[in-house]
Amino acid sequence: MIRGLLSVLLVLVAVAVSSSLAKPEKNIAKRGKRIPQTLSRGWGDQLIWAQTYEEALYWARAQNKPLMVIFHLEDCPHSASMKKVFAEDKDIQKVADEDFIILNLVYETTDKHLSPDGQYVPRIIFVDPSMTVRADITGRYSNRMYAYEPSDIKLLLSNMQKAKKLLKTEL
Amino acid sequence: MIRGLLSVLLVLVAVAVSSSLAKPEKNIAKRGKRIPQTLSRGWGDQLIWAQTYEEALYWARAQNKPLMVIFHLEDCPHSASMKKVFAEDKDIQKVADEDFIILNLVYETTDKHLSPDGQYVPRIIFVDPSMTVRADITGRYSNRMYAYEPSDIKLLLSNMQKAKKLLKTEL
Repeated sequence: MIRGLLSVLLVLVAVAVSSSLAKPEKNIAKRGKRIPQTLSRGWGDQLIWAQTYEEALYWARAQNKPLMVIFHLEDCPHSASMKKVFAEDKDIQKVADEDFIILNLVYETTDKHLSPDGQYVPRIIFVDPSMTVRADITGRYSNRMYAYEPSDIKLLLSNMQKAKKLLKTEL
Repeated sequence: MIRGLLSVLLVLVAVAVSSSLAKPEKNIAKRGKRIPQTLSRGWGDQLIWAQTYEEALYWARAQNKPLMVIFHLEDCPHSASMKKVFAEDKDIQKVADEDFIILNLVYETTDKHLSPDGQYVPRIIFVDPSMTVRADITGRYSNRMYAYEPSDIKLLLSNMQKAKKLLKTEL
């Protein structure tokens, strides 16, 4: 029934999912008590995270706030080091909490606008509440324009300030 | 840029989001320490939940397991009573853990196949790993075919058994 979507989806997912991505481990009995999974995944337990892109877009519109989408992988060392700096930076956490709708994803969506120069992690994409992907807000690297390293944390904060200046909405 | 998707999306979201849905409350300072949000949302903290429909479809394919999608709302009393029974039923939890990919959503997706007879909560939709939505696996109510009440928990378990008998894959 959803075969049309499927072919697109599988290509996207195949690209996004590295072989190192941990599989969900099943069977409670074998593993003892599990720690419930959190939506923050360590990027800021005190922040309010959207679960899906659809939900995030809804809140961006409803609250007229820009959306920040963080693509990452649990087993990627670059993602992990970026996450640590992001979670520990008080300015980043404060601005994210007060002025942004935030979403972190370990799977790609089907929306190609969220990968202006390809799918890789970590990458951070801003979306204006007018639903325009801010492809103009980039990091430091010309081959991976939406990638950030821990040493780029001040640039990320400055990009967040840039994203807060909303585009004129035409809606 | 994503204006095309937008109009569809907003209609779906507008339908899905009741006015009673709690807004994410912002400003950490005012509220004290928050409890991190969990992916289970109380439907089984010990289960492994997919975050998004894309992720869930990927795992269904990769593990050749059926997918169970639970649509609910945090402030809906019918959802809440169903959740309680679902989380406390050991058989349901065991089968969900061992034989299913599971996803619970408080926002609709853009895929209309997940709402064969409309969008309402709570509703439970099964998807075969061949990516076919199992519109044939229904509950007891002819006006809301994918709704379940707490007293239908055994029917739900039996429907889960039905979903485990996979369709012949044509892929």
